[in-house]
Amino acid sequence: MTAPTRLVERRARATLSRAVEPGDEHAGRWLHRYGATGFLDRLLHPADATDSGGSGGSGGGDPFPGTGQKRVTSWRLRATAADPERDLAAIHELGGRFLIPGDTEWPRQLDDLGDARPLGLWVRGPADLRTWALRSVALVGARACTPYGAHTAADLATGLARRGWVVVSGAAYGIDGAAHRGALAAAGATVAVLACGVDTPYPRGHDQLIRRIAEQGLVVGELPPDSHPTPSRFILRNRVIAALTRGTVVIEAQHRSGSLVTARAAARLGRHIMGVPGPVTSALSAGVHELLRGDATLVTDADEIVELVGDMGDLAPARRGPVLPRDLLAPATAQVLEAVPARGPTPTTGIARRAGTTPDDTLAKLYELHSLGFVERHSEGWQLTKEATSASNARRGGT
Amino acid sequence: MTAPTRLVERRARATLSRAVEPGDEHAGRWLHRYGATGFLDRLLHPADATDSGGSGGSGGGDPFPGTGQKRVTSWRLRATAADPERDLAAIHELGGRFLIPGDTEWPRQLDDLGDARPLGLWVRGPADLRTWALRSVALVGARACTPYGAHTAADLATGLARRGWVVVSGAAYGIDGAAHRGALAAAGATVAVLACGVDTPYPRGHDQLIRRIAEQGLVVGELPPDSHPTPSRFILRNRVIAALTRGTVVIEAQHRSGSLVTARAAARLGRHIMGVPGPVTSALSAGVHELLRGDATLVTDADEIVELVGDMGDLAPARRGPVLPRDLLAPATAQVLEAVPARGPTPTTGIARRAGTTPDDTLAKLYELHSLGFVERHSEGWQLTKEATSASNARRGGT
Repeated sequence: MTAPTRLVERRARATLSRAVEPGDEHAGRWLHRYGATGFLDRLLHPADATDSGGSGGSGGGDPFPGTGQKRVTSWRLRATAADPERDLAAIHELGGRFLIPGDTEWPRQLDDLGDARPLGLWVRGPADLRTWALRSVALVGARACTPYGAHTAADLATGLARRGWVVVSGAAYGIDGAAHRGALAAAGATVAVLACGVDTPYPRGHDQLIRRIAEQGLVVGELPPDSHPTPSRFILRNRVIAALTRGTVVIEAQHRSGSLVTARAAARLGRHIMGVPGPVTSALSAGVHELLRGDATLVTDADEIVELVGDMGDLAPARRGPVLPRDLLAPATAQVLEAVPARGPTPTTGIARRAGTTPDDTLAKLYELHSLGFVERHSEGWQLTKEATSASNARRGGT
Repeated sequence: MTAPTRLVERRARATLSRAVEPGDEHAGRWLHRYGATGFLDRLLHPADATDSGGSGGSGGGDPFPGTGQKRVTSWRLRATAADPERDLAAIHELGGRFLIPGDTEWPRQLDDLGDARPLGLWVRGPADLRTWALRSVALVGARACTPYGAHTAADLATGLARRGWVVVSGAAYGIDGAAHRGALAAAGATVAVLACGVDTPYPRGHDQLIRRIAEQGLVVGELPPDSHPTPSRFILRNRVIAALTRGTVVIEAQHRSGSLVTARAAARLGRHIMGVPGPVTSALSAGVHELLRGDATLVTDADEIVELVGDMGDLAPARRGPVLPRDLLAPATAQVLEAVPARGPTPTTGIARRAGTTPDDTLAKLYELHSLGFVERHSEGWQLTKEATSASNARRGGT
C-alpha cells in the first residue's frame, strides 16, 4: 500500500472508529468485504453502491443487506458527524498515534478477534505496542477488591515487571490500579487498555495514574478522543485485553463478574487463563475459584505465571539470542541499544544520557530491547545479554 | 472357610499385626503366597519349612528367600513374644473387634493396597466400617493449622455429615481434630484412623475427642492394643485413610507435608484428590496450591466435594432405592429400621426408644441405613425413603 493510500485508509478507520461501537461484528463483516474506504463510501453514499449491491436493476437497494436499518442509520449519522482530521490531530498533540492493521506497531494477535477486531487503536506512550504485547500478561479483577487482592495484584505485577514482562490491565479501581502501580513501582512496563478515549481518563480518580502510565508505558483504546465509557464498552474492552496478551490472570472476582468475561474471552482465543486462589470464605474469590474448577490454571506467584505464558511455542522456538538482527531495529531503539555499555549493568539514567534522550523514553526502548533478547535487567541496571554481546563482537570482527 | 478356621486365621493375623510393621510389602508377599497361618508357621518353625522352600535337599535353607535376615528375625522375635489371645480379649473388653479380610465388615476397598493391605484392623465403635467407608471422604491437613484452616475443616465436615457422608481423618491436632469435631457437632458420622493402638489414643490431648468418636463413630487402626505411634507409622497410616475413602480433601498443608503424602497415595489408588484453596500469602496453603496445580480438584464447599465423590460409578449405577434387601440386614440394624415410623421425620432419641437401644448405637445404625438407601435425614429427624416405604408396603402386600 502506498503512503497516500495508507493515509486515506487511516482517515477512513478513524472515521469508522467514531461511527461504529467497539466489537460490532456486523461492521467487521462489511469492513472485511469492502475494506475501510469501501465500507465508508457505501455508508456515506448509499445511492452509488446499489449497482454492485447484488440484486441488480432495483435502483436504491439496500447497501448493507442483512444489517438492520437502525444500526446502519446510527453508523451513518455518526460517520457524517465525524472529523477524523481533528481526532488525528488531537492524538498527535498528545504525543500519541492512531494505529491500524498493517502498521509495523499493530499487534497482529488482535487479528484473532476476527470480525470483532478493533478498527484501530488510539495509543499514547513511548513504547512499541506490538513488541510489548508479545511479552505481556493481563492482570484483572474486582474493582471493590480486598486488601489481600490489592496486595497480591501489586506483588504479581512487580514480579512480572522484574522478569521483563509487560503488565496489561484496565486502569479501573481495585485490582487493575494495584496491578499498574505494582509494575510502575518496579520501574516496569505496563499498558492500560481503556473503555474510553485515551485523552479522557476514566475513572477520574485515576487521572494521575493514567498520566504516569502514558509517560512510562502505554495507554490504549479503541475509542477516539473525547469518548466516554458505557457499560457495553467496558465489556467489549475486555476482549482487547484478552487478545493483546499471552494470558489473563484473574486475581479477585465475584461470581458473574466482568473479569470472568475477560478470562473466558481469553480462553476462546486460545490464551492461557489463570486464577489466584483466596480464602473460600471470601465472596471476592468465589468467581476465581469457579474459574479454577474449570480450565484455568492456579497460580500463586510471578514465576508460575511466567512458566506458563513464557512457553512461547512457535513464536520463539528455543530462543537463544536476539530475535531480530540489530539492523532491523527502529533508529531510536538502535540508538538506545548503542548506549548500553558492553560490560556491567548500567542504570537507566546513565543509558539515557549516553543515548541523548529522556529516561522514560529510554526505559520504554530498554523494555523493547529486553523482549527482543538484546538486554537483560539486574537490580543495578541494564546490560547486554551474552548473545547480544557476541553478535555485536562478531559484527565488529571480534571473537 | 469354617468357623474354627476363621478363628485360627484371625489369631494368626492378630499375631502378625504385632510382628509386622504396617504396610510391609515383603510380609504382604509371603502372606499372599502362604496365607496368614502358613506364613506364621514358616516364621515360627523355619526348620519344617525347608522341604517346601524350593531349593530341595539343602536342609535348613532360607524359608523367606529374598527377604533380609534382619527383617525376618525382627518378625520372628515379635511373633514369638505376641499374645494374640490377650490382644483379642483386650479389644473385646473395649467393645471392639479385630476385622480381617473375608469378614462381612471388612472394607474391601483396602484390597486396592495390594501387598501393603493391612493384615487386619482393630476397630472400636458401634457402626459398620464397610458400609461407612463406602460413603466416606477423608479430610486431612496440617497439625499447626491457621484459624482459617480449622474453621474450613469444621465447616466442610459439618456439611458432609449433614449430607450423610462419613468424615474420615487421623485424630491429630489441627485440621484432623477440627474435621472430627465438625462432624460430631452435626451429630454426624466420623472415623478416626490411628497410627497406634485404638486403646492408646494419640495425641493425649485428644483423649476425650477420640473417646467420643469411639462412642458415636469408629476408631480404627492397624496396630494391636497398647502400640505407640512412630514417624513411619504416621506416614503408613495415611495410606489406610487414602484407601478407605472415596476421596481425600487436603485443607491446609505446607510444601512436603504428610497430608500431601495421603493425597498422592489416594491419587495412585484412583481416588479423588481435592484441595481447599487459601491465600497465596499463607505458607500453610502452599502445599495445597501445589496439589491444585497438579491433578487435584479445587473444592470450596461440601456440595462440590459430594458432587465429585458422589458419582459412585459402577458401585451404585443409577441407584433408586435400597441397595440391599431388608432381609440381608444385620438383626440389630433391621431392628432400628423397624423402629423408623412410616410417616414423618422422627428424632434419633425417639427411634432409639422404639428400637430399645442407645441413641449412639441407633445413630450409627441410622447412618448405615442412610448409606444403604433406606432412610433419609431431615432437620427434624429421620424418615424412610420413598423407595424403602414402597418396598416395605409391597412386602406387606400393600400398594
